[in-house]
Amino acid sequence: MAKQGMLIVLSGPSGVGKGTVRKEIFDSDDNDFQYSVSMTTRKMRPGEVDGKDYYFVSKDEFEDEIKSGGMLEYAKYVDNYYGTPLKYIKQSLAAGKDVFLEIEVNGAMQVREKMPDGVFIFLTPPDLMELKHRIIGRGTDDMAVINKRMAKAVGEIKMMRNYDYAVVNDEVPLAAERIKAIIRSERYSVKRVMPEYEEMLGDAES
Amino acid sequence: MAKQGMLIVLSGPSGVGKGTVRKEIFDSDDNDFQYSVSMTTRKMRPGEVDGKDYYFVSKDEFEDEIKSGGMLEYAKYVDNYYGTPLKYIKQSLAAGKDVFLEIEVNGAMQVREKMPDGVFIFLTPPDLMELKHRIIGRGTDDMAVINKRMAKAVGEIKMMRNYDYAVVNDEVPLAAERIKAIIRSERYSVKRVMPEYEEMLGDAES
Repeated sequence: MAKQGMLIVLSGPSGVGKGTVRKEIFDSDDNDFQYSVSMTTRKMRPGEVDGKDYYFVSKDEFEDEIKSGGMLEYAKYVDNYYGTPLKYIKQSLAAGKDVFLEIEVNGAMQVREKMPDGVFIFLTPPDLMELKHRIIGRGTDDMAVINKRMAKAVGEIKMMRNYDYAVVNDEVPLAAERIKAIIRSERYSVKRVMPEYEEMLGDAES
Repeated sequence: MAKQGMLIVLSGPSGVGKGTVRKEIFDSDDNDFQYSVSMTTRKMRPGEVDGKDYYFVSKDEFEDEIKSGGMLEYAKYVDNYYGTPLKYIKQSLAAGKDVFLEIEVNGAMQVREKMPDGVFIFLTPPDLMELKHRIIGRGTDDMAVINKRMAKAVGEIKMMRNYDYAVVNDEVPLAAERIKAIIRSERYSVKRVMPEYEEMLGDAES
């Protein structure tokens, strides 16, 4: 039996810098996992490549995937669907490749339901005030909007309880290093290596 | 409330090289945990220092510690007691210091009973044949002794199930690096950081 790959899910509140940290991890030399390309119904933007930035599909195609159970997770924002197709992930894991997902918290919880063996990492702002500064720093919202976002952030941070790890994004390279240490160490977790050792014991006793 | 330290327990079959790996970890610059000094009733050898190599005590003193619940774990080998006094560990953890224990598998299981929140790491030989070679390599035992040790090793490797991580000791520096990655990543586990975040949420909501 070939060794199964490991599913790594990076999530966290909006504005925390998930995409930047993910990019830092993928730009480093020692990354050796597959990035899962999302599927969307929104229009392709100039410079984007189908199958690289997103799989671009029609609304009908996306809804067919949902109905047939082909989406690991999905959500609708402003009339467009965004989601993770299950097919490519299963193929990669079966081929022994680790797969890296960077998704919103609601999506992460859908993944946890379907693939509880994944490693679930929550990226957190250094503290709530820091998150507040970042949102204000965008400079486009009034206080009502900010307060609404804050309440949402508090709720999302409470979601941290559903994750395996919480990594503070105080500095992007540090956050990336922490996540890489988590991924490395998860490879040594007994629940992941035990099947191999049980095989070894079987050989020794026969 | 001060942050609690983390208890790290390194164990594994006899002959696997626990002591060498532990030394490699402690000799590195980036180690910042306390090594737990064992207590023993055996005689001090030339060059050994009381309180550094071991706490050297009398048989009566050791048995008093056992009776009063002062030993985290202990065992008797060839008429001498060896064990880990609980007092220093509790003090270090309460002061926020991480504590590193390197002990035999039976001792590790006693520790797991009493301090289940610890990080339990099992050091394994690259495979059973490798362990066999190492034991034969000592060159002092006949086949009956070797077979007995092999059976013991198989039993000990089965004990791996009771650990959080299994690290292969193929090369000492690699094994040490893996263990350091595990310790780093455990610091980000949600169960360890959640109390801090709950405090943060409490502050933000009040």
